[in-house]
Amino acid sequence: MIRGTTRLIGHLGFPTESFKAPMIYNPYFEREGIDAVVVPMGCRGADYPDFLKLFFRLTNAHGALVTMPHKVTTTGLVDVLSPTAAIAGACNAVRLEADGRLAGDLFDGEGFVRGVARKGRALAGARALVIGAGGVGSAIAASLAKAGVAALGLFDMQASAAEELGRRLVAYYPALRVATGSNDPSGFDIVVNATPLGMKPDDPLPLDVSRLPSSAFVGEVVMAQEITPFLAAARARGCTVQVGTDMLFEQIPAYLEFFGLPTTTAEDLRAVARLA
Amino acid sequence: MIRGTTRLIGHLGFPTESFKAPMIYNPYFEREGIDAVVVPMGCRGADYPDFLKLFFRLTNAHGALVTMPHKVTTTGLVDVLSPTAAIAGACNAVRLEADGRLAGDLFDGEGFVRGVARKGRALAGARALVIGAGGVGSAIAASLAKAGVAALGLFDMQASAAEELGRRLVAYYPALRVATGSNDPSGFDIVVNATPLGMKPDDPLPLDVSRLPSSAFVGEVVMAQEITPFLAAARARGCTVQVGTDMLFEQIPAYLEFFGLPTTTAEDLRAVARLA
Repeated sequence: MIRGTTRLIGHLGFPTESFKAPMIYNPYFEREGIDAVVVPMGCRGADYPDFLKLFFRLTNAHGALVTMPHKVTTTGLVDVLSPTAAIAGACNAVRLEADGRLAGDLFDGEGFVRGVARKGRALAGARALVIGAGGVGSAIAASLAKAGVAALGLFDMQASAAEELGRRLVAYYPALRVATGSNDPSGFDIVVNATPLGMKPDDPLPLDVSRLPSSAFVGEVVMAQEITPFLAAARARGCTVQVGTDMLFEQIPAYLEFFGLPTTTAEDLRAVARLA
Repeated sequence: MIRGTTRLIGHLGFPTESFKAPMIYNPYFEREGIDAVVVPMGCRGADYPDFLKLFFRLTNAHGALVTMPHKVTTTGLVDVLSPTAAIAGACNAVRLEADGRLAGDLFDGEGFVRGVARKGRALAGARALVIGAGGVGSAIAASLAKAGVAALGLFDMQASAAEELGRRLVAYYPALRVATGSNDPSGFDIVVNATPLGMKPDDPLPLDVSRLPSSAFVGEVVMAQEITPFLAAARARGCTVQVGTDMLFEQIPAYLEFFGLPTTTAEDLRAVARLA
């Protein structure tokens, strides 16, 4: 129930038609009596820098969820950037600090990490392999580093992307051991596909699953189907798996905390969401 | 239920805390399955010209409800202004035309006029007296002229305000007979208090009710109480009366039409509103 006191969380991106966040957050806010609302705002690239600034000058602006095509641009528009956002070169959450500065963070990878932790796997000291060093892969790698993994394998078809990501990671986490150039999963505790492979029916698998340790925790970012061919193959080898939408819901509590709002579990959010 | 396809009607003003429109429109949109939402946006004066422009560049912007302190400023920010808004010097509704121009109109007075008409009183050819030539009085006078009244009496403690309003009215409606300088209601078919008198318990009445014809239709803009002392006195003389909130609800169908949305009656909107 929107009223004059309702705090706005702008969902800024373009196009807006496929936005899911309003149907996840708003039913939760309603159930909990939290006087806030997520509002899709279809902002084009040329207007975005000015709009972001003016949005946060609204007296009832509470925060912004930023999505395509503004995640990269936003890193240059905020006053304070978290290490995770700086490493990944992208920002998907913005809030106004008490001192008037805009602070940006990135929670895509945090969703992956929280999902791993909640499934009982230790992140501190673990060895993790991230396949794909694009937007979501960079986000996951940065969040894994923040969570304290000891070693990160980074692989991308474009080798320089993985190498540059590795350099940015080590700049913030000097103790982290980074290796690039191989997608061989043997010896890793956590393995994640952060490429689009699996979105189309005839896509190849992102790595040689015959080399997956059965002890590995295997995650996926593709949401086109719940169990992708990659996850099916990993499960057949005995691996614990995490589906793409887990990452989506696991990150929502992180945003709620960032925005200073009462939080809950990913399962609860999934249950209250009205995505149909 | 807000989703990625939802059209936004920004409710632009400052402060927002007392806004009522979201609790009137949104329950109606929800009941009717109209994929639109009224969102309060607390915009300060210095930010307003830029924000209004950028708001209408959002791909899901549908329209704006404009309130204090932006009603006057808005007349200079739109490309096309209705005669009603031009006469009153205020604009409280903005939409984007198909050709990309911003069009502004004013429906405060339309609410009053629709209330009169729905209570069975003829406006065409009528003689109407408007006490108070401020924002709401100017709006009512402009809408009465549009509705075809033959003669308008205008009175304001500040005589020049009534005289200037009269000149603007005659510029758009040359056949209208305008008289200023008297608050004597004798001889009028429609009489409206458009001053704040009645908001405080010890306010004087806006005119000498002993001179009110019992045939007069008497309206009020004050909403502090349903039956103000002025309306009570008019009713005691046998006049038909219209309360302040009637004007509020009667104008909503006019906005819905302006925004190209399915409309309904004022009573229906009043019944579905969740103002508590």
